[in-house]
Amino acid sequence: MTRARPPLPADTVREVGEFGVIARVVARAGAARLAEVGPGDDAAVVTTPDGRVVATTDVLVEGRHFRRDWSSAEDIGHKAAAANLADVAAMGARATALLVGLACPSDTPIGWLEGVATGLAEECAPLGAAVVGGDTVASAPGSDAVVLSVTALGDLGGRPPVLRSGARAGDVVALAGRLGWSACGLAVLRRGFSSPLAAVAAHRRPSPPYAAGPAAAAAGATAMCDVSDGLLADTGHVAEASGVVLDLDRAALGDACLVPEGPLQQVGAALGVDPLVWVLTGGEDHALVATFPAGTPLPAGWRVIGVVRSADPAAGVLVDGEPAETVARALGAEGTGHAHFG
Amino acid sequence: MTRARPPLPADTVREVGEFGVIARVVARAGAARLAEVGPGDDAAVVTTPDGRVVATTDVLVEGRHFRRDWSSAEDIGHKAAAANLADVAAMGARATALLVGLACPSDTPIGWLEGVATGLAEECAPLGAAVVGGDTVASAPGSDAVVLSVTALGDLGGRPPVLRSGARAGDVVALAGRLGWSACGLAVLRRGFSSPLAAVAAHRRPSPPYAAGPAAAAAGATAMCDVSDGLLADTGHVAEASGVVLDLDRAALGDACLVPEGPLQQVGAALGVDPLVWVLTGGEDHALVATFPAGTPLPAGWRVIGVVRSADPAAGVLVDGEPAETVARALGAEGTGHAHFG
Repeated sequence: MTRARPPLPADTVREVGEFGVIARVVARAGAARLAEVGPGDDAAVVTTPDGRVVATTDVLVEGRHFRRDWSSAEDIGHKAAAANLADVAAMGARATALLVGLACPSDTPIGWLEGVATGLAEECAPLGAAVVGGDTVASAPGSDAVVLSVTALGDLGGRPPVLRSGARAGDVVALAGRLGWSACGLAVLRRGFSSPLAAVAAHRRPSPPYAAGPAAAAAGATAMCDVSDGLLADTGHVAEASGVVLDLDRAALGDACLVPEGPLQQVGAALGVDPLVWVLTGGEDHALVATFPAGTPLPAGWRVIGVVRSADPAAGVLVDGEPAETVARALGAEGTGHAHFG
Repeated sequence: MTRARPPLPADTVREVGEFGVIARVVARAGAARLAEVGPGDDAAVVTTPDGRVVATTDVLVEGRHFRRDWSSAEDIGHKAAAANLADVAAMGARATALLVGLACPSDTPIGWLEGVATGLAEECAPLGAAVVGGDTVASAPGSDAVVLSVTALGDLGGRPPVLRSGARAGDVVALAGRLGWSACGLAVLRRGFSSPLAAVAAHRRPSPPYAAGPAAAAAGATAMCDVSDGLLADTGHVAEASGVVLDLDRAALGDACLVPEGPLQQVGAALGVDPLVWVLTGGEDHALVATFPAGTPLPAGWRVIGVVRSADPAAGVLVDGEPAETVARALGAEGTGHAHFG
């Protein structure tokens, strides 16, 4: 007897089937503190103590936002959750729940999906959030790529949302969280290395300062966003939405982000790259940037990195008074941040 | 002078760039009645009068859930919205907002994305809902396929959610909306035809009975779900979750779903198919199925199609007392509904 083709590997998504997949993934979803109805019905039901819900969606595509040979399934779950949870924090809200849409090839090992579910749950758990629903389907015929679309919900706790449009002349610009670590880790991985581990780990699993978002809102932040595409690009969105100029202070940024003997300095020296380029244009660490009225006592974890100049029709970002584009080019960057359809 | 490769076609996603795409898509998003913050910030903010939010995600993959040569961009937007809005209705809730995650090739014409946005908005508008946020990214390198992940939010209006688990012995089983039309339209398209148009149109743009969901909840429905995978499969989920047997009445189903001289009868006769197979196993019309205590006056649009038998450890679905699997096989169906990783 001959076989026309080899048997399927054990425990693929195809073998386990849709409801097997759901059961295995749900078993790892954790429990959301505010979920009244979790996975398994037509929809989830999540309580919204504030009377409003914050909602955001981020899509991660294999080969663009992650690689299965560079990141474990758990890493990818952590990263997909973090990208969305940081958006919720950037509104000044606390995340309450995730919904996950996943397209994967039918020969995906079920253990890989379980790993993603575990990573998602672990990233949410400290916030009291969990995956409350979603949909898992087969990738397009002929496509080997995983697409992960995560929606996060959050609660504002009675505070107004902190938008990108509220920065005012005279405000200070402040930062919470790390910048440049993920981009540095990516540079390491691209060259085929896997150390320093701190940088590579930061690329695999960002550590957004979730609590800093609601704390900034409570302290009176006038504008806020998360840094997903790069500091210059994302502060550019705040500048544009607010119709102001943000002037960042290179020395303060260095103090905040470039630890002597830290991984950015080490890798920069080894690769002949000024690590400031990662700090200014690297995304995916999901730091938070906010503006506060001058004199506001900043909450823990926030450091001043610049000021808001008087409103200007040519809204934009400066670094020590120089246009962001010029600074980025001088550092060898292709632009001020990530291009999504390059 | 020679060119190494031809210029890009005008107005692709790559040429317009991420923010051009967002601007063009947002211009078509419509306005959600309950949105406090719409697209353009880190997250949307939607008011939740009930104090809870209903949330559900459905993923549509090109080549599995739609084909760009069979459906227009507007059709695909309508269909993606409908799949999610029906899940919200199946909880007894009214949809308030959508978030859309979209992965598409960089050479996708921007006009196609605008069409999807228009379809999404048109499907939402009668409900007072709209797209309030999302993310558009490039497909995986080498992949030509569009993946559309839609999340719908909804409000329960003070009513308890209607779960799949509440069906009780003695309840009647009732149906709102159409069954089998989408499957019939798909059978037509698969054979290379495009008429009867009513069936093909139903496949391209389902017409879920959104208002019937909250109406059923208000009337005291004990369990409810939408029919996305096929009546036998989806009532099977209610039977299993409730630990009961649902016995469907073939004659009542025929009366409810098979109009003499209607497209299902016409196409069935032409193709030599018993149209009952589409009614019992065809998905994607997003009809609603609910159980009500016997004697409940049913709201407009609902018709009785069966009864709930006494609780049974072997929970399942019968048609005129015969097991669903047997009935489906006798009609020539491969199973009781759609297999997601076949």
